[in-house]
Amino acid sequence: MEKELREAIYETIRKVREENPTAPSITNTVTQDFVANAQLSVGGAAAMVYMPDEGETVAKNFPSFYINVGTVFPFYEESLPKTMKALHENKKSWVLDPVGVGFGKLRTDLLKKAKDFKPSIIRGNASEIPALAKLWKLTDAPKSTRTHFIETHEKVSDAKDSAVALAKYTGGAVAVSGEEDFIAGYFEDKLTSVVCPGGSSMLTKLTGAGCSLGGIMAVCAAVSSPFIAALSATVIYNRAAESAEREAYAPASFKVKFLDALYKLKPGDIAYNSTDDFKLDE
Amino acid sequence: MEKELREAIYETIRKVREENPTAPSITNTVTQDFVANAQLSVGGAAAMVYMPDEGETVAKNFPSFYINVGTVFPFYEESLPKTMKALHENKKSWVLDPVGVGFGKLRTDLLKKAKDFKPSIIRGNASEIPALAKLWKLTDAPKSTRTHFIETHEKVSDAKDSAVALAKYTGGAVAVSGEEDFIAGYFEDKLTSVVCPGGSSMLTKLTGAGCSLGGIMAVCAAVSSPFIAALSATVIYNRAAESAEREAYAPASFKVKFLDALYKLKPGDIAYNSTDDFKLDE
Amino acid sequence: MEKELREAIYETIRKVREENPTAPSITNTVTQDFVANAQLSVGGAAAMVYMPDEGETVAKNFPSFYINVGTVFPFYEESLPKTMKALHENKKSWVLDPVGVGFGKLRTDLLKKAKDFKPSIIRGNASEIPALAKLWKLTDAPKSTRTHFIETHEKVSDAKDSAVALAKYTGGAVAVSGEEDFIAGYFEDKLTSVVCPGGSSMLTKLTGAGCSLGGIMAVCAAVSSPFIAALSATVIYNRAAESAEREAYAPASFKVKFLDALYKLKPGDIAYNSTDDFKLDE
Repeated sequence: MEKELREAIYETIRKVREENPTAPSITNTVTQDFVANAQLSVGGAAAMVYMPDEGETVAKNFPSFYINVGTVFPFYEESLPKTMKALHENKKSWVLDPVGVGFGKLRTDLLKKAKDFKPSIIRGNASEIPALAKLWKLTDAPKSTRTHFIETHEKVSDAKDSAVALAKYTGGAVAVSGEEDFIAGYFEDKLTSVVCPGGSSMLTKLTGAGCSLGGIMAVCAAVSSPFIAALSATVIYNRAAESAEREAYAPASFKVKFLDALYKLKPGDIAYNSTDDFKLDE
Repeated sequence: MEKELREAIYETIRKVREENPTAPSITNTVTQDFVANAQLSVGGAAAMVYMPDEGETVAKNFPSFYINVGTVFPFYEESLPKTMKALHENKKSWVLDPVGVGFGKLRTDLLKKAKDFKPSIIRGNASEIPALAKLWKLTDAPKSTRTHFIETHEKVSDAKDSAVALAKYTGGAVAVSGEEDFIAGYFEDKLTSVVCPGGSSMLTKLTGAGCSLGGIMAVCAAVSSPFIAALSATVIYNRAAESAEREAYAPASFKVKFLDALYKLKPGDIAYNSTDDFKLDE
Repeated sequence: MEKELREAIYETIRKVREENPTAPSITNTVTQDFVANAQLSVGGAAAMVYMPDEGETVAKNFPSFYINVGTVFPFYEESLPKTMKALHENKKSWVLDPVGVGFGKLRTDLLKKAKDFKPSIIRGNASEIPALAKLWKLTDAPKSTRTHFIETHEKVSDAKDSAVALAKYTGGAVAVSGEEDFIAGYFEDKLTSVVCPGGSSMLTKLTGAGCSLGGIMAVCAAVSSPFIAALSATVIYNRAAESAEREAYAPASFKVKFLDALYKLKPGDIAYNSTDDFKLDE
């Protein structure tokens, strides 16, 4: 299967570079600039909106969307459900980044509602994914009961069951970000799991590192299935981070090199250049 | 006339460097950081506001203002008309950046209202300018009927008639950004058009490149007439982009070099150092 | 006393590097990215919120908070008082950055209310600090009656009396940023004042330079007393700025080097490496 996966990653990156798909967002205000520039660097395009009718219209007119609840505004009470509904009804791909799940009433309400609209890809860290699975009543309580907000010290491996439960429910893909990324999802109708080592610890010193990965997944989802989009985005992201770390081991220099690498890496360098970029998780 | 234009550009940049004028903004949240840093690098200063009474007060107390509707919040229904009215009544210079014109009800309502308050400078890409001219019933429908949001693949040359129609209506200047920029406006009471080649394709890989140009125009408009402000901003912007591209051909490194160049370029380098920086369009 | 202060600075930076405290914020949207990355670079962590119930919950669950009113949204009418009340009642450290004090009705109302909740640290420039002291009726009118918004041309030395008056009222610390920073506050129950020379004029060419300093103070306040937190943050900030200026004398390159230096400087380099980093102000 590895050969097919590499071919699919290659095709995804090639198409993104060629077609420059726009993946609009309703996303947190702190990291919008990083998300948009990551989407542009990788070959896509960005468009952030806030208003209910905008979210709805964009959802109908573009192939893919990114929703990140890292910051929420009062009027998201209307914007997010309308947008998620339009995405679901129009069978569009969309990425949910449940930043801060469990924190605050509005965010909790919105994430509960997201269940009905089955995000194609869910991306989060090792505390957010179990917390979302719990919120959606797909698993029992996560082991930790800490407030899950921004920071996490959970292990990716402890989030695997939750990720698989979420993927089975949505029929799409779920990505857990951490030292080693874990992705579960459907590849040719078969539930498949991969572990992606690599990346750089420097990413933990940048605000919006996870959001940028989610934004890139949304760009890739414009041209590929959810599982392949999540995997392709993770692989280009990790390779770019490694390339950046070799050139700069301090956060702001690293960020510049990282975005540059997202732009410069070629499909072949991404899909065929490493033997430890991902491995099937049995 | 070229000699007079070069002298006017020189004087504009010199004054901006010397007087550090603040050009406040109501602008989209995605690119605020880039706009503010571009305004600061060029020698001006920035101040972003949201609230209706703030917009009104700032409009009265500063010589110039920047309005960009790339993202809109519900309360802009009150903030923007109040601010634009105060700008118009107090005869202040202001730049309108009609990002996403035609997209969403609130944005459309706000841009319709902007007609009454005659922006000194309108800056947009080759799909936004025709769409605005159409919205204001100054021209017939644009050739393309695509949703005009963020991305454009129209040609600047196809937007010239719309730009001229808008400039005749406002009595100010209109700038169409693209591979070659086109600027129409009044120089010594005579409608004048220039084409500005140059710049860098790297700018299309950065979120907020157009917004930054609009923000710099607002800074220049604090010390010059609308047409000269639009031209001066475009010329410094294109020279800085070319300088950056020579040093870095990848988006994030390019952005750093671009902002640095906005800061370092001298008035003489900007106004007198190139023969193909602009040419009169007959 | 200098020896004790140096030991306290050393301990503050060491603890921040070791414990990575999160200092959440309600802060202006323009400079959120810079604030968050400065907090991360220095060793802390960031989390920006907007909603009333979020502010309240975060205030209860984290040791320190950063409030910056550079931009205000209508719903801050509820978010800020609730958050400040929770911070005060739970005896948490919090930094107030009164950007634009005196400007706009909502900002003025919020800053008046802040008086009751006694911010542990107040950080502002030489026009904001006197304007806040006046608003709180702790001093007579500031000498200048200009609108205090973003820019200042006042001298830090003219703000000393106001800073001391504010520190006496809150029992915490007050920092006036400028060419030489001035900090007044309580060290071992004794009102103490220091002057901190250094830094870089390049910081005046970056949006959010002051906000970033405030954000770093909030991180330091998670592990130290207000006065030591304000002093430690100012010292690491000035050393990082000097280091950056030696490597890059243009704004965007400087910003990259500055954030890198915040990350790389060691506690000993910060606390013991300079004889003119601060001096007691008699």
